[in-house]
Amino acid sequence: MTRVVVLGGGFGGAFTAARLRDRFRADPSVEISLVNRENYFVFQPMLPEVAAGSIEPSQIANPLRRMLKGVRFYASDVASVDVAAKQVAIYAGEGKHLRQLPYDHLVVALGTVVDLSSLPGLAEHSLTLKNIGDAFYLRNHVIGCLEQADIEDDEAHRRSLTTFVVVGGGFSGVETIGELQEMVSLVLPHYRSLRREDVRFVLVHSQERILPEVVPGLGAFAADELRSRGIEIMLDVKCKAATAEHVFLSNDVAIPTRTLISTVGNAPNPLLKTLPCRKERGRLVTDATLKVPEHDGLWALGDCAAVPSPDGRTYAPTAQNAIRQAVMCADNIVTAVRGNGLPKPFVFNALGKLASLGGRSAVAEILGVKVKGFVAWWLWRTIYLMKLPGFERRIRVALDWTLDLIFQRNIVQLKVFRTEKVDRAHYEPGEAIITQGEIGDRFYIIEKGRVEVARVSNGGPELRLATLGPGEYFGEVALMRDLARTATVRALEPTDVISLGRGDFAAFAQNLSLLKASVEETLGKRLPSEGAA
Amino acid sequence: MTRVVVLGGGFGGAFTAARLRDRFRADPSVEISLVNRENYFVFQPMLPEVAAGSIEPSQIANPLRRMLKGVRFYASDVASVDVAAKQVAIYAGEGKHLRQLPYDHLVVALGTVVDLSSLPGLAEHSLTLKNIGDAFYLRNHVIGCLEQADIEDDEAHRRSLTTFVVVGGGFSGVETIGELQEMVSLVLPHYRSLRREDVRFVLVHSQERILPEVVPGLGAFAADELRSRGIEIMLDVKCKAATAEHVFLSNDVAIPTRTLISTVGNAPNPLLKTLPCRKERGRLVTDATLKVPEHDGLWALGDCAAVPSPDGRTYAPTAQNAIRQAVMCADNIVTAVRGNGLPKPFVFNALGKLASLGGRSAVAEILGVKVKGFVAWWLWRTIYLMKLPGFERRIRVALDWTLDLIFQRNIVQLKVFRTEKVDRAHYEPGEAIITQGEIGDRFYIIEKGRVEVARVSNGGPELRLATLGPGEYFGEVALMRDLARTATVRALEPTDVISLGRGDFAAFAQNLSLLKASVEETLGKRLPSEGAA
Repeated sequence: MTRVVVLGGGFGGAFTAARLRDRFRADPSVEISLVNRENYFVFQPMLPEVAAGSIEPSQIANPLRRMLKGVRFYASDVASVDVAAKQVAIYAGEGKHLRQLPYDHLVVALGTVVDLSSLPGLAEHSLTLKNIGDAFYLRNHVIGCLEQADIEDDEAHRRSLTTFVVVGGGFSGVETIGELQEMVSLVLPHYRSLRREDVRFVLVHSQERILPEVVPGLGAFAADELRSRGIEIMLDVKCKAATAEHVFLSNDVAIPTRTLISTVGNAPNPLLKTLPCRKERGRLVTDATLKVPEHDGLWALGDCAAVPSPDGRTYAPTAQNAIRQAVMCADNIVTAVRGNGLPKPFVFNALGKLASLGGRSAVAEILGVKVKGFVAWWLWRTIYLMKLPGFERRIRVALDWTLDLIFQRNIVQLKVFRTEKVDRAHYEPGEAIITQGEIGDRFYIIEKGRVEVARVSNGGPELRLATLGPGEYFGEVALMRDLARTATVRALEPTDVISLGRGDFAAFAQNLSLLKASVEETLGKRLPSEGAA
Repeated sequence: MTRVVVLGGGFGGAFTAARLRDRFRADPSVEISLVNRENYFVFQPMLPEVAAGSIEPSQIANPLRRMLKGVRFYASDVASVDVAAKQVAIYAGEGKHLRQLPYDHLVVALGTVVDLSSLPGLAEHSLTLKNIGDAFYLRNHVIGCLEQADIEDDEAHRRSLTTFVVVGGGFSGVETIGELQEMVSLVLPHYRSLRREDVRFVLVHSQERILPEVVPGLGAFAADELRSRGIEIMLDVKCKAATAEHVFLSNDVAIPTRTLISTVGNAPNPLLKTLPCRKERGRLVTDATLKVPEHDGLWALGDCAAVPSPDGRTYAPTAQNAIRQAVMCADNIVTAVRGNGLPKPFVFNALGKLASLGGRSAVAEILGVKVKGFVAWWLWRTIYLMKLPGFERRIRVALDWTLDLIFQRNIVQLKVFRTEKVDRAHYEPGEAIITQGEIGDRFYIIEKGRVEVARVSNGGPELRLATLGPGEYFGEVALMRDLARTATVRALEPTDVISLGRGDFAAFAQNLSLLKASVEETLGKRLPSEGAA
């Protein structure tokens, strides 16, 4: 049995798995698996349309199980990769256990994550547009700002609610501000106390022209088009800091706004740091055949890989490159498994570049030909529709686009976020709240009831160490020391607890002086003297 | 100028406002306003279809601004009603200020809320199906359970992930379990390690037959239909308690499950308690013309009103009754405003009852005729489609239903919930974190930086009371004493804080003994001696 495991369900991972499945279809001795946190593939180029409400969120999400029939799918996070033992550990049991997936070939296609930690306040106060949840949130946030502004008496506060700032003038930033401006101008007549001149859109870009990816002529056209629709473009300006009410720029301007959208700050997936391989700006370095040298059966591609190109540089992190690399990587794995031939190097020239500007305008460079305006927009729609994986999605998106031409833009603000942030839980007598040996991820405070703390040491009988009651807490040992649970805590009576996740607990325990002191004192008493259980 | 204010945007409120607008269309001296937390009307009878993924969430949500063009709309919560001064206070400024809406006529149509506090653990561990957010959450939760179960090795844990329990055998419970069972059976083939016999659906009902609203023959048909699809029905059984892993029943059975859906526990809106009017089981008592006696210009209807019926009882809380009452109430207000005639009493016989069972089956009683099976299902769809407000919605839902007949059910699991629960925020020097006089709703701990605490007393100059640094906290005074902010806290340096909302702060401060003692001690020192500022 040959096991091929693919990590990541974006363009790189999903297309590798699909190609592997097709090539190995007649071969029952090869098992292909894919691990991805979300159970769907997202067609990222259309996220700005989702954020602007012209298509529904679920319609650019294709379920990986359906797209990759025949591939074993795991909806989970990767905990670690052991390239020596050739196995991947993923989380199971709702994050409480690990499950090992051994592999013969491993394809790392984990893409990038957003890292905004270098600028004060940006991580807390900016919105990103990386997955469907982000797009969904952004759309509802913008509608929510208009609703708030409509009942706001204070002039300055109202203007800040109707000011929208996008940082980054690349493809993603330009498309996002273009689409949002179109949406806001379409729905504005419904908000009686808002005037068109109250609404402000600002694009902040650190270079001297927007869309540096395309030729200067098209970038200039895009800039003129956006400006003609009232969007301000600030060039050669960087974002310095952000707060809930302002964005602070390098030209010493502070813009009052409740909506800061950041399209910058892409960083390699943190898991890559743990791999004992050579990296270039955080990306795994591969050879031209997409293999990671010196590690048997290890491959990498897409945005998380540094793939050498014939001009001595590396390929740009685009969907086109990822899809082409996926096909090449799958074919090279087939060659390696069958042992019939040599792997092929990856060589590819970009077919073209497309950027929608909203308002039925776009810019495009296709096989060297420059197109702009309505024709480019029509091309953009047609090409992306053809590229959307799955016949059903294509029909649904085409229908949505058609209805969008006929009907008005939707202004429903869906608030599906839970507003209370502390989790409460109830336990009946005998139920375990935490279990010795499991991975710990929560901290608990007892609100009502009594619990026992019990431990099994060195295979002996379970011993009761303590009972705890209202106002007392537990669960901090595993969080503070990054250990598995060192004891089992079980309800003795009907018990109510309030609990905090790992990140929240860290925020509290490290910052609230009195809690910090108490937790550290308790920790000394509770840590098992023989080390971790 | 005559001002009519309507509270609530459900069937009762939205249809009252629509009728008032139509009747007063030619009369510029009448202003009609509507206040609702969400900016959309939700067609509640179709929530089970949204939860089961056969229609998209946004398609049963109709934007109130569009549905009620000509009506002044406020997306906000009602803070209080002063029936003596004839004004309503709503929240503005993101909850930090109040805005007064004076009225000549006030229509209270606030519906019901879910109150599960009487059963241990039910509020924490059961899902409800009251608004679109709930339906959206439930659908993603069920798909998430299947994903988890598919990677789970432990047999008992896996079975608990694929066990779905619904409490309440009325319309809502029966439709929910029918639709969910249909969805799960449609998508199950995608989950390789799950077998059909692993999946369990249980309907728990406290009475001796399900669907007590319809004649016994139809209830029995519905029960047979559900049982034939493998759904267990437990009659004469109540839910006693719930935990994250079990539901405990009155027959001493504990069912291991991760999915408990509660369709019971409807309670009147808590705002009604504050009104100095006569109530019956929490509902406002009206006369037959829908007026609340002894209060000038006060009207009530729908689920929050006890409207006397000719048989000496009160009308049932159904959408049909609410819509009819809305028309009558609007007409009676028109009569009162114009002073031409007497208000008319509300008399109405139910037209019929419909319940979908999923799997293209339903039961219906229409003008006394009983229908069941496929014909009833077809009637159910047709009638609800005709009742859906707005031509566009009808087209979109009809399209979705058509596509659902052709294509497979969607298994995308959208996780749009933020996983970290503590809010972090960044402030630049000079920015106010809290402002004296505003309504307080958050508690803050300083992570980095310094802040000043300053107060203006009796119109004098602002005085600095203290500076605070890392590990110190503020904002507790307004939360503990329910006062407006008694001081302004302003960043002196770039400052990072972590913060908790009102409910979360209460959970912590009341339960974590050491925090409670500290907060109470500090409170004594910080409370302004002259009382609230």
